[in-house]
Amino acid sequence: MTNSDRNKAKKLSTEPYKGVRDFFPEDMAIQKRIFGVWRNICEKYGYEEYGASVLEPAELYRAKTGEEIVNEQTYTFTDRGSREVTLRPEMTPTVARMVTAKRRELGLPLRWYSIPNLFRYEQPQRGRVREHWQLNVDLFGIDSIEADIEIISLAHQIMKNFGAKDEDFSIKIGDRRWLDWLAVELGDFTKTEENKKKLFRLLDTKDKDPEKYMRGLKEIDTNLTPEIVSGKGIDWEAIDKKLNLKLKQIIKRLENLSITNARIDLTTVVRGFDYYTGVVFEIFDTNPENKRSLFGGGRYDDLTSLFGGDRIPAVGFGMGDVTIRNFLETHKLLPDIKNPTEIHICTLEEKFIPNAQELAVRLRAKGINVSTNLTDRKVGDQIAWADKRGIPKIICIGDEEAKTGRFRVKDLKSGDETVTAESEFVL
Amino acid sequence: MTNSDRNKAKKLSTEPYKGVRDFFPEDMAIQKRIFGVWRNICEKYGYEEYGASVLEPAELYRAKTGEEIVNEQTYTFTDRGSREVTLRPEMTPTVARMVTAKRRELGLPLRWYSIPNLFRYEQPQRGRVREHWQLNVDLFGIDSIEADIEIISLAHQIMKNFGAKDEDFSIKIGDRRWLDWLAVELGDFTKTEENKKKLFRLLDTKDKDPEKYMRGLKEIDTNLTPEIVSGKGIDWEAIDKKLNLKLKQIIKRLENLSITNARIDLTTVVRGFDYYTGVVFEIFDTNPENKRSLFGGGRYDDLTSLFGGDRIPAVGFGMGDVTIRNFLETHKLLPDIKNPTEIHICTLEEKFIPNAQELAVRLRAKGINVSTNLTDRKVGDQIAWADKRGIPKIICIGDEEAKTGRFRVKDLKSGDETVTAESEFVL
Repeated sequence: MTNSDRNKAKKLSTEPYKGVRDFFPEDMAIQKRIFGVWRNICEKYGYEEYGASVLEPAELYRAKTGEEIVNEQTYTFTDRGSREVTLRPEMTPTVARMVTAKRRELGLPLRWYSIPNLFRYEQPQRGRVREHWQLNVDLFGIDSIEADIEIISLAHQIMKNFGAKDEDFSIKIGDRRWLDWLAVELGDFTKTEENKKKLFRLLDTKDKDPEKYMRGLKEIDTNLTPEIVSGKGIDWEAIDKKLNLKLKQIIKRLENLSITNARIDLTTVVRGFDYYTGVVFEIFDTNPENKRSLFGGGRYDDLTSLFGGDRIPAVGFGMGDVTIRNFLETHKLLPDIKNPTEIHICTLEEKFIPNAQELAVRLRAKGINVSTNLTDRKVGDQIAWADKRGIPKIICIGDEEAKTGRFRVKDLKSGDETVTAESEFVL
Repeated sequence: MTNSDRNKAKKLSTEPYKGVRDFFPEDMAIQKRIFGVWRNICEKYGYEEYGASVLEPAELYRAKTGEEIVNEQTYTFTDRGSREVTLRPEMTPTVARMVTAKRRELGLPLRWYSIPNLFRYEQPQRGRVREHWQLNVDLFGIDSIEADIEIISLAHQIMKNFGAKDEDFSIKIGDRRWLDWLAVELGDFTKTEENKKKLFRLLDTKDKDPEKYMRGLKEIDTNLTPEIVSGKGIDWEAIDKKLNLKLKQIIKRLENLSITNARIDLTTVVRGFDYYTGVVFEIFDTNPENKRSLFGGGRYDDLTSLFGGDRIPAVGFGMGDVTIRNFLETHKLLPDIKNPTEIHICTLEEKFIPNAQELAVRLRAKGINVSTNLTDRKVGDQIAWADKRGIPKIICIGDEEAKTGRFRVKDLKSGDETVTAESEFVL
């Protein structure tokens, strides 16, 4: 090894790959708390968890999103068998693939959820990382608004279980069919798919950046005015009837389920997802300093036909870990997260380590999470180590404890000590 | 769209990418059961969960494993910023990177675990997929055999909690330093790293394929005889003393922790992991028809120095989902896995769906997992749907139930029915 080799080896970086995150235990604990609420509520609603690999054939995304997105915004590479592989940028094509594959065996309706990691190739910035985790919830096989109601109320319940109040967030509900109708009404401008997308992107800025939105409206060559968008002068009854939208009914039914923060907003777009075909919804942070879109979803009835199968009605949403963690932090809804270890056993001398390990085995059999000192450090240092990690209680083992089987349990927060016999010990 | 385009679109495959698995809910339930035991036991021993991205800089693997393995056995590609990226093939380099990065803040000793997915580019075959999940458990900062004892007993406890008995598996314990000594004793043959690896690979076949092993011993040009390998004619006392191996002591201490299936086997290699520096162990299936290695681990004290940090003593192991699932299936240790949904609410007519949804909200508030019918199917079909999914109980909502708030709960397995008022309902 030359000197230059050695220096090179020495400099092997401890940084993760650009745009992805390391989860040290305290970050992981927050992640687990978020995943825990997600799993808990999904299962409360009768949803079953599924999973898949992060690797998918690239063609899965080409079919719907077009070459450009696959090439520029995803991680796509060629494997040694000349297969084009993509690190999944979203879960919906995967779940559509899986449901189509086993449709008959599975039997509709299906209630499914998953918490995949997703990859996007973009410049890392706040809230935009290259890898994030996303809860995906989908209900397959129901054509009626019952499915939209269930999915929206499940999304609402997740927010509630994170500790959010109805006033902390709002649910905007729209319908893609209205946007399609609007696009037709607007005449020439929206005749091209490109301009239609431009319009949708513009509508998406309405609440997030009103100035940009007004500027944009003036710039595009169309008869679209702020009045039309906000619904002034539009004959809603006629449009509702014509398009058979059932948004008012959905709002009413959600109210009956004690959901008070849902409202109709026909400009609800849920950006970037071209496959929606009906009701769409988007959850917003109501914090005036940060009126972000938190997540969204909607009905996509045509996706399974990509695989040559029959049309399967579907409603779903995705909720990302980064956005929700920011929301929880902003609203001070992240609880203090405890170390799962409940007791640390300290040893007065190194020779008591075997006693500590044997005691630990017996306490674990009672269901207690126990770590034991394995060092020759002084007891004070052992206690400091446990305290630094947030382990709430300690036991010290010395001659007397080893002989009598009675020991002192100390609560590190209160300083309280109790003496107990092992046989009577409960936490 | 031309006809040929349409045919192409129609044929979009529902298969996953080659060598990876889809997890339909029943497979995912088994996966969750395995992960659940892993998490439970790790936390019983005071280990905290960490995580990281599947993407790592390729240089992380080059440093220790050499160009060849990185290029031929991993998924490595160049991103648009000309960075070489690898889908992690193992977790140890990642955890060494993370621990080195925050060593001071974290404070030793550290007890960490993770359940990453890992990628290897190889021909898919039984038990060898391109992506698998692996429990990784590591204890950093302890030089003494206390760390080896804790890690081995944790691995043993996981097997026990899966329902395995001590006679279902055995724990072989060896020491890398003995192998290094052996290599020196063998003279010229093992002077090259390549031949040394050849020898280790050969030793690894001793129990798995004894015929191949004996053939191999004869073929290599060395003074290694089966007698030497099996320890006949070797002055163990002298070697123990010389190398300061403490294997007997470890076995004795494990016995005191009621672990009866550990034995010394100096040919224990734990293949493919060149970074082990001391005690190594390997868990074997004792099923005579299938004497596979299930998983293994050991001490690797030098890995953190790759990052230019100080040496940190470390002991750990990795346990894969595919191998353990095969083991559990072979030994009939996979329990019937239940649908997490506890009750399905059926509706006698479609108009009762709102009542069902409102009742479901209230039952969920009591902590019960509830799904509701959203279809216009006949009640018999609704019940068949619930039964097919293994949902154990149903409630039917009609006129009377909506009016009185009393309903009938039917157990689908026993057929028993009980009538109860909603306010008194408990599961």
